[in-house]
Parts: sequence; C-alpha cells; structure tokens
Amino acid sequence: MAVFDTNTVAIEQAFEAVPRRSRALIALERAPEGVVERGLKELHHGRSLLQAVQGADWVIEAISEDLAAKQRVWDLIEQVASPDAICTSSSSGLPPNDIFARCRRQDRCLVAHPLNPPELIPLVEVVPGTRTSPAAVQRTSAYLRALGRFPIHLKRAVPGYVVGRISAAVWRECIDLVLNGVIDVDDLDRAVSLGPALGWAAAGPHLTYHLAAGEGGIQAFTQRLLSTFEDFWGNLAKWERLEPEQKRAIAQAIERTYRGKVEQLRGSRDARLSAILKGLEEARTDARS
Amino acid sequence: MAVFDTNTVAIEQAFEAVPRRSRALIALERAPEGVVERGLKELHHGRSLLQAVQGADWVIEAISEDLAAKQRVWDLIEQVASPDAICTSSSSGLPPNDIFARCRRQDRCLVAHPLNPPELIPLVEVVPGTRTSPAAVQRTSAYLRALGRFPIHLKRAVPGYVVGRISAAVWRECIDLVLNGVIDVDDLDRAVSLGPALGWAAAGPHLTYHLAAGEGGIQAFTQRLLSTFEDFWGNLAKWERLEPEQKRAIAQAIERTYRGKVEQLRGSRDARLSAILKGLEEARTDARS
Repeated sequence: MAVFDTNTVAIEQAFEAVPRRSRALIALERAPEGVVERGLKELHHGRSLLQAVQGADWVIEAISEDLAAKQRVWDLIEQVASPDAICTSSSSGLPPNDIFARCRRQDRCLVAHPLNPPELIPLVEVVPGTRTSPAAVQRTSAYLRALGRFPIHLKRAVPGYVVGRISAAVWRECIDLVLNGVIDVDDLDRAVSLGPALGWAAAGPHLTYHLAAGEGGIQAFTQRLLSTFEDFWGNLAKWERLEPEQKRAIAQAIERTYRGKVEQLRGSRDARLSAILKGLEEARTDARS
Repeated sequence: MAVFDTNTVAIEQAFEAVPRRSRALIALERAPEGVVERGLKELHHGRSLLQAVQGADWVIEAISEDLAAKQRVWDLIEQVASPDAICTSSSSGLPPNDIFARCRRQDRCLVAHPLNPPELIPLVEVVPGTRTSPAAVQRTSAYLRALGRFPIHLKRAVPGYVVGRISAAVWRECIDLVLNGVIDVDDLDRAVSLGPALGWAAAGPHLTYHLAAGEGGIQAFTQRLLSTFEDFWGNLAKWERLEPEQKRAIAQAIERTYRGKVEQLRGSRDARLSAILKGLEEARTDARS
C-alpha cells in the first residue's frame, strides 16, 4: 500500500500515526500481531502521485472537505490510475457527482465514507453518483468486507449522506441543550452514551420502535408514537447557523470539560469501543451456535 | 413492591411480563438468579391505590403520556402516600410542573424517565420541576444507583427532556431518508447501529468531536467542524408533522421490513444489548486494575 501527499508534514504524521494506531489494535484485541506487522511492511511512501497510484487496484482520496481541491486531485489521479482501478473518495458529505465532475470515467468512481476512528467503527457508507456502475459499488463493498468493514449502500447521494445528516441533527440538539442551560456537556455525553446510543447500537431507530410496539399493533402504535414525536418535532432546535459568540461558548464549554485529558479520554474511548465490538461479535457467535 | 392499575388487563400483562423479563436477565447474565427470585417474591398486586401506595418509600407513576390522566392520578396518590415518600413520574417528555400541578407538596415530586427496555438500558433521566427539592433529586438518584441504574440530572425541564429531543431529531431524519428513497429501512437501521451509535456509546457527541480535534486545536477545529455542520443543518428535514399518507408509508415500510420476526428480533436485540453492557463493564474493570 502506497501513501502520497503533497504536504510533507501530513506524510510524516501518517507514518507516525498508522503504525501507532495499527499496533494499538493488537493490545485492544482487534487485530492479530502478524496481520498488523505484515500490513505495516507493505506500507510505503509513494514518491509521486504517479508512483503511488499507477498499478493500484483501489485509489482512495482522503484530503480535506474542499470540493475544488478534490476535483483537482481526481483530475490528476485519472491521468495516472490504471483503467481497471476503483476510485473512492472518503468525503463525509459532498455529492459524488461534484467530487468526480472532471473525471471522464465516472462509472468506477464513488464515495466510501469511513467513520472516526476508522480502524474501529465497522460502518462505511458507500455512496454512488448517478454514473457509478453497480459493478463498482459491488467491488468496493467486497474490498471493504475483506477488510472487516461493514459497507452500507445509499440508493442515491444527499448532502451529508446518512451519517452526516443524523450526526448533524444530534449535534444541533446537543449544542442547543447545553447553550440553553438544560444540561452540562459531560452529563449530556453520558446521557447519550448510556441511553439512546446503547439502544441504537443494539437495534436501529426504526427497529427500536417496531420492537416497542410488540406483535400486532405496529400501525396503531406508529400513529400514537408519531403524535408524541410531532409534539417534540415542533419544539426542536431550528437554527441553521450559530452566532460567533455561540460558537465560542460551545467550544469553550467542551474544552473546559475535557481539556488536558485528551490522550487518556481517547484511550478509554478506544477501549470501550473495542469491548463493545467484542461483545457484539460474541453475541453473534452465540446466536449462530 | 406493589403494582396497581385500574385496568385489570394491564395488571395481568404486568404479572406475566415482569417475571418473564426478570428471568430473561438471568440467561442474559445481567442479574443473578437469587436476586431475581427474591425480587419476584416481594412483588404483589395492590388491591387498591391506597393499599399499593401507603407505606411506600417511593411511588412510581407509569401510566400513558396523557397529562390530564397523570394529574388525576397524582391528585389521588397524594391523598394516600406517606408524607415521606418520594414521588416520581416515568413520563418521557411532559413538564414535571404540569404533571404535579395539582399536588400540594411538589418538593418531593419529579420525573425519573427510564428508557426501553428499562431492565437493560442504564440511563434514567432525572428531571426536577421548579419546586422539586435538591434532597428529592439526591434521594431518587440514590435509589436508582442502588438498582444499578445510571441517573443523569437535567438542570431544568424542557419538552421531551434530553433523550426525547435527541431521539426525535434522529427519527425525523431517519424517516425523511427512507421516505425520500435514499436508503431502505433495514440498511438505515444497520448504518446507525454499526456507525454513529457505536461511536456515541463509547463517547458522547461533544467528546467525540473533542477527540477528533486532538491535543491543542479544539477552538480552531470547532470552527472548521461547525462550518461543515452548518452546511448540513441548512439541509436537514424541517417538517414538524407528517401527512397521513406519509405516516402510513413509513409504518408500512417498517412493518414490511420486520413483520413476523418480532420475538426473534427482540431476543437478538436484548442479547446484543447485554453483550455491549458486559463489554463496557469489563472495559471499566480493566481500566481500574
């Protein structure tokens, strides 16, 4: 695997972070040592875009969320990539039609959006543009599954895809609750973690309500549930931008709560995430046996 | 523990469901058999509201989300409850000031909102009214912690509290994505479960973004992140009600996806939830050792 960036600082950071985070997976029991070390041996720094991309079966672009920059990079990649390569962007919300607008061959181009931290969260959103071929979607999904990821196909692209939209809806409400003095940053985070997130990790939102309805009355239940939710929907945060002082206030509230403990908090988060994933795998094995 | 309901069908259902669901906790390794059987022995059917409530240290009202009915019930409970009893409503979103509006002694009255399924999800939202005493909040939290629950205090009540608002924001977006043909019901549920919900179960929304920023640049990161989110916020679902045909369409889509498998799906959900909780407890023990 070749990594390339025009920014040498970014390359240095990658060659520090990739080995560190890959080896952390061994301690977290998420990957065997042999696999990690073999992968790290295969990792190298492409000296040019040409050298990094030519001969690759799969070209992944993961630059920042700047549409014009992505278009320029894809223009360059298309000139040097093998005609058989699959081309994916890791964008977290830009329309694939826009990202690949300058490419002549858009049939093999699509978005494959991993979540943070990508080495632990299984989901990858697979988002085709209008010209992406079904074969490219299938091949990308097969690559992702071979890497132990769980690809989910969107039928069409919308800004933010699925994850970005849901995350934006959640974060707007979370910011609103903190700025309005309903709950503190850390209590809100704990409430989400120990409440709805646990429920959704075990069963997505629609399934959760389907199970709450029980055998039989889903239609009647949905009607009743929807009228409760209509009361809430009318009452949710509606703002689409934050004033500069609100941006400062929320950033300061988060910083005040968590500053100085980032490495420790990240370690605990990764340990919890690994433990949850192991638990889920055991539950799946138990169900099959 | 005494259970009372004027609806005899509801009482019959409770005396079927409570033993069944309590004993399921043994198989799920969430409770030891001795504790469950002792608890079930202490469970009895109060013959009247008076008999169920008098002498109780803690009176829990968990009728349907009908404000007038809740007010009537609390009017009756106050006439028979011990002067020292803590009084909590399990409402999922009504203002405590309204629920307890007819009570003379509102200092010991508050909302303690558990999530579904309450025997597995640790979070309980503790929501005081404007007249609730800090002592009542503390005593309710102590009771909940003794039961292995995780109480989170809201500083003040808002409609839907924290969980209802966040759930409503998520479900509106989920419904919108399905009704607009972006993704199917089951793929959406899996995307939430294997993506953002896993992340939030390990670290709440604010902490997730704080960790994404890394050491140092939280202010700069927040500014950048917020401008990405502002693009999404302007693009999210804005509707506050669904048309009758939309209600039918979403209910039918959910039913088509999951019908006929409710008991099996609930069993798998409960197994996943238990496995996640066990994983989290092990991660916590590891971190301490």
